[in-house]
Amino acid sequence: MNDLVIRPATPEDIPAIVAMLAADSIAATRESPDDLTPYYAAWERVAADPNQHPTVAVRAGRVVGTLQLSVIPGLSRSGTTRAIVEAVRVHADERGNGLGTVLMEWAIDRSRELGADLVQLTSDQSRTDAHRFYERLGFTGSHIGFKRQL
Amino acid sequence: MNDLVIRPATPEDIPAIVAMLAADSIAATRESPDDLTPYYAAWERVAADPNQHPTVAVRAGRVVGTLQLSVIPGLSRSGTTRAIVEAVRVHADERGNGLGTVLMEWAIDRSRELGADLVQLTSDQSRTDAHRFYERLGFTGSHIGFKRQL
Repeated sequence: MNDLVIRPATPEDIPAIVAMLAADSIAATRESPDDLTPYYAAWERVAADPNQHPTVAVRAGRVVGTLQLSVIPGLSRSGTTRAIVEAVRVHADERGNGLGTVLMEWAIDRSRELGADLVQLTSDQSRTDAHRFYERLGFTGSHIGFKRQL
Repeated sequence: MNDLVIRPATPEDIPAIVAMLAADSIAATRESPDDLTPYYAAWERVAADPNQHPTVAVRAGRVVGTLQLSVIPGLSRSGTTRAIVEAVRVHADERGNGLGTVLMEWAIDRSRELGADLVQLTSDQSRTDAHRFYERLGFTGSHIGFKRQL
């Protein structure tokens, strides 16, 4: 892992990030890797918000992992600031070598640095391997995640 | 419901919001209603972030409901902007009269106005009544919500 760099994403990383988002059996139909226009538009919104931390893991100049960390201040839980992790992906060539763990441990440390007291994420009910992975990292699957399309 | 007003929360609403956060069997031990200091400190962080929308429902001058809406832009799902609903509470005196539905329908409409394409929330696994409530509102419990304290 010595040659791995985890750093803020830049617009130049968008094609590689989208390729990883789309290379996923559950998410594939939700992505449009052949037309990056909506991603560049979304990037403008992400980049304008100092509480959004789009992140990539790079090895030998190649983007091999990604996640987005969002910091959410709030009143509940005695004024807890939450960090939310979304869109975690590891490149298919890099699975099973511990990169996912390194990336999530980075996210946990970075959340702490950003003033969060709690890290949370949701994972599709069908991703049972991912659930075991998050439990090994100290997460508890205490909640049900509800979504509603608008 | 004619006399109900849903409006942005102000610092003056903090005691009433905290009382509702604490008047909950699951959350009670996580709140500190006898010392509002951490809530006022958290309020400063919430108020400084234009993507946080702390909200109250008021009837006859009395705060009877609350929720926090957070807008999170992102790359995934073809550049979807998400709205996250947290800390939904209805005053004990107002349960069963449809206020929860009115409040959540407001949150869904407001999320759309704020440019979100998706609304999401997590609910403790044990809140089975709440799960049915969210399903009636068009939400799907497709995910597991993982949390890790820092």
